[in-house]
Amino acid sequence: MEHRTALGATVTAFVTALADAGLRHACFAPGSRSTPLVLGLAREPRIRLWDHLDERSAGFFALGLARGLDEPVAVVTTSGTAAANLLPAVVEANLAQVPLVVLTADRPPELRDAGAPQTIDQLRLYGTHVKWFSELPPPDGTPLVQRAAASAARRAVALARAFPPGPVHLNLPYREPLVPHFGLSIAAPAGAVLSGTPQLDERELAEVAALLARRRRGVVLAGPQPDPALAPALVELASLLGYPILADPLSQLRAGPHPRDLVLDAYDAVLREPEALPALQPELVLRVGAIPTSKPLQLALEAWENTEQILLAAGNWPDPAHRASWVLQGALRPTVRALTRALALATPRPDTDWLARWRAVDRAARAALEAGLAELDEPFEGRVFRELAELLPDGAALVAGNSMPVRDLDAFFPSVPQRVRIFANRGANGIDGVTSTALGIAAARTGPTVLVTGDLSFYHDLTGLLAARRHRLRATIVLLHNDGGGIFSFLPQAHEVPEQFEFLFGTPHGLDFQHAAALFGLAYARPTDRSSVRDALAAALVADRTSIVELRSDRQRNVVLHQELWARARAAVRDALAAGTRR
Amino acid sequence: MEHRTALGATVTAFVTALADAGLRHACFAPGSRSTPLVLGLAREPRIRLWDHLDERSAGFFALGLARGLDEPVAVVTTSGTAAANLLPAVVEANLAQVPLVVLTADRPPELRDAGAPQTIDQLRLYGTHVKWFSELPPPDGTPLVQRAAASAARRAVALARAFPPGPVHLNLPYREPLVPHFGLSIAAPAGAVLSGTPQLDERELAEVAALLARRRRGVVLAGPQPDPALAPALVELASLLGYPILADPLSQLRAGPHPRDLVLDAYDAVLREPEALPALQPELVLRVGAIPTSKPLQLALEAWENTEQILLAAGNWPDPAHRASWVLQGALRPTVRALTRALALATPRPDTDWLARWRAVDRAARAALEAGLAELDEPFEGRVFRELAELLPDGAALVAGNSMPVRDLDAFFPSVPQRVRIFANRGANGIDGVTSTALGIAAARTGPTVLVTGDLSFYHDLTGLLAARRHRLRATIVLLHNDGGGIFSFLPQAHEVPEQFEFLFGTPHGLDFQHAAALFGLAYARPTDRSSVRDALAAALVADRTSIVELRSDRQRNVVLHQELWARARAAVRDALAAGTRR
Repeated sequence: MEHRTALGATVTAFVTALADAGLRHACFAPGSRSTPLVLGLAREPRIRLWDHLDERSAGFFALGLARGLDEPVAVVTTSGTAAANLLPAVVEANLAQVPLVVLTADRPPELRDAGAPQTIDQLRLYGTHVKWFSELPPPDGTPLVQRAAASAARRAVALARAFPPGPVHLNLPYREPLVPHFGLSIAAPAGAVLSGTPQLDERELAEVAALLARRRRGVVLAGPQPDPALAPALVELASLLGYPILADPLSQLRAGPHPRDLVLDAYDAVLREPEALPALQPELVLRVGAIPTSKPLQLALEAWENTEQILLAAGNWPDPAHRASWVLQGALRPTVRALTRALALATPRPDTDWLARWRAVDRAARAALEAGLAELDEPFEGRVFRELAELLPDGAALVAGNSMPVRDLDAFFPSVPQRVRIFANRGANGIDGVTSTALGIAAARTGPTVLVTGDLSFYHDLTGLLAARRHRLRATIVLLHNDGGGIFSFLPQAHEVPEQFEFLFGTPHGLDFQHAAALFGLAYARPTDRSSVRDALAAALVADRTSIVELRSDRQRNVVLHQELWARARAAVRDALAAGTRR
Repeated sequence: MEHRTALGATVTAFVTALADAGLRHACFAPGSRSTPLVLGLAREPRIRLWDHLDERSAGFFALGLARGLDEPVAVVTTSGTAAANLLPAVVEANLAQVPLVVLTADRPPELRDAGAPQTIDQLRLYGTHVKWFSELPPPDGTPLVQRAAASAARRAVALARAFPPGPVHLNLPYREPLVPHFGLSIAAPAGAVLSGTPQLDERELAEVAALLARRRRGVVLAGPQPDPALAPALVELASLLGYPILADPLSQLRAGPHPRDLVLDAYDAVLREPEALPALQPELVLRVGAIPTSKPLQLALEAWENTEQILLAAGNWPDPAHRASWVLQGALRPTVRALTRALALATPRPDTDWLARWRAVDRAARAALEAGLAELDEPFEGRVFRELAELLPDGAALVAGNSMPVRDLDAFFPSVPQRVRIFANRGANGIDGVTSTALGIAAARTGPTVLVTGDLSFYHDLTGLLAARRHRLRATIVLLHNDGGGIFSFLPQAHEVPEQFEFLFGTPHGLDFQHAAALFGLAYARPTDRSSVRDALAAALVADRTSIVELRSDRQRNVVLHQELWARARAAVRDALAAGTRR
């Protein structure tokens, strides 16, 4: 078979199998070596192509799209450092369990390690950070090579999706000439790839349920996890036990129509109060999903020496304190459901006093924070999340940048009844790729998407903004601009090395991002007082293009305001604890 | 020993050994886990710290600094995806043989793969793309661990520099608290690490020299290599043989005070003429360094079936055509010197007609290109290099972006007597990190630095511009803005898939980079005619800050102009060949 015909037939077999396996979206950046693949993809009506120019941003956009859609998304690069630029997104996808299908075009083996242009060693380029790597043979026209391409495509999409989901990498060598002749192709195989999920043993589950039933003073810790449908399942389990649910903002339990009377949202403030730690120490913590965002909660989990920890994990090991006794590996919702069934047979007897104590303290802390926020007239980064809790409609997506925004989200976004999906890149907690991830989420969803990000993250992914304009996305980017690394002001470095602090950690850059808005053709507002911030957010939420709402703040003042609010919440916690004791 | 004292002592031992080994520059981006290391570096007066915010840009800036200084440069990141962002620069450093010392802070082993924040698998993160990887033990106060840190530092700098130079990676785990107590430190070991270089066997060299002496019709092909001192050595060798030197713009032979009468600079145009290929086919090509930039030259090397190729390689294998007969591995200048000594004993007898034929044809092509450029009044991307050949003073650095700029450099930058060092990232030929590389070069040098880059490269490394302002660098950035991927218009894709071309390859973005200049506080000019381009370049060369000189062009018109110039050169080549035959 003539080379270009062979190329066309093999690429068609590959792309058809991708679509048959359910792949609907592919992000790409332009290149020459990837020509056969992108031309093949462009011919497949079931796959939508998203063009990008910076592969690093393309990788994170694909990650956001996959998170927003809960389905595998492909990202395609040409050969060379183009492929290397995907590593940050691949690392995040691996740790956050996001199904990315990475397709890198390559030179054929005879041109590798021999000085050919744009040729690097792409074999296992992402190392331990992908679930699966495979290299396809260069298309040669033989039916076996065509079938191998189709198998790899089906397998890649299925593996990316299979428990636990994550990134896979296929390396695709192509020989010149690179423009295929399309026409011929093999018949697609019928059927599909089915992947099982781990099922826990009923007798072992009964043992865990019996243990839970014996521990009347427990808490559920709902950590970051992406499934909105976990919420009602976990509420049912917690109700049986009479445990409060400490709901991480990324647990999908803070916002939604599920019963929320067990859902606590102020434990981050509560556990800052040293008196609360012994008073609220549980006999048992039932942890679900990834580690919590809240540092005080993490410290409490480490500090509570005789508290038993049962961990429901999704194929990973989120236990840096190494305190888990039982570890139940499996998809979270099925595990929770199975445990609930086992528990119903074990007839637990909830301790209502215990639950009441946690709720009273949590509510006191939340009320104190709310009162503190209400009194503040000056700009405050944390209040953005309080405003959004009111403004976000049903079906909205909220994305928080790492470092400070996700912590402020935890502290200041109270439990609300709207269906709001809340996202952050908490696999590796990077400040990179945040804007692109949010724009990928915006592209995936019909409701409004709001990103709250710091200025270092915003700067880091500046090239990612192009997608907003190129794909006519409607997103609101709340830019918390404190001219540098705000989180470092909360760390010991700030007072222990004051002379070197600004140069080594604070890193002010003095950038006026109004010019970035102009460069990428985005709406821009910089409100300075409380009501204009709210008005700007409300306007951006209904605007027909992506808007940047910038809030300027001062890093040192930001620390002071946080500390004042926490002091207020701690006082309320002490009062509530004392009232509980007196009662 | 108390933890913070142990931390301080170990970091001091490490940093002192880095400086003892000759490391003078370290780039970093802010982070928490890297606190001990950056605080240690900040205390070492022999090491200058360069602060950055985007690690990808920091990596390429370090690469540029190392290239500009011809010495190892460190790049420091915190843990997590920060480290992953360095992969593109590491890949380029590995292929381009640039000594980078990558230092990544990490959590200690007990916090890895257990859900701890900002913790990824950093062991062998850069895979096959570094010369050496090692992980240090977490500082524990024992003298052996301190000495191990000092050894690793000495070894890393020495290995980065040793033949062939390249990147090395040390992973440095630190436990909390992260602010060290400095004071104690071990005595530094006396001595230094000495690394040998390969010496070729004299009898084997004599055999190669004898072969060269027998082949009277040969050419030297000076490929990309960084050493300016190679020029006189290679000219001496070529003179003995009477071979013309086809001097790649990145060979450091085009510009400089060495004798240039053997140096040919128009072979790219010459070899586009099919009649030239048989007429100028050599019996032997002596290749030195990496593969040439010129595609016509690469095609000729593949097409010349009975031409023997001797390759002088620097520890790599730059022979994608797989036509090399002898391969001499070693540092290029010593190999050339040794071969010259061996050749003097073999008494070669140059063929003056052969040399005259190549020179006549080369000069005819260059004259035709010059005449064509002189007649052009409209903006033309390629003419920028012609202008720069006149404007650049002794001691200047010229950096070309990949894709079109480096090809236009090859075609239109004639041989000149000024000492101009010419750079491009031709390891992996990426369009990423170009601006940062150029700014790193500018930071390394006292003379002016000019970067010529396309709009996709400029966009890709937008965050890299911050360094210009932050480090008060003086560079001239010539931005060839044709709104997309100009090189693709020269490929078959442009006419074979016309409907999909703009979406999949041309990728226009419509960005007005004047806003980027405003964002980063850079001077900006957009001259539109020939004399104003020249004036803007001349002004930028003496400006006290970094300037962007933008030249707008049209991708399709750019192809037409190139083709017209090549047609003109080819006609001149045919005439010269005919004149040579008649004579």
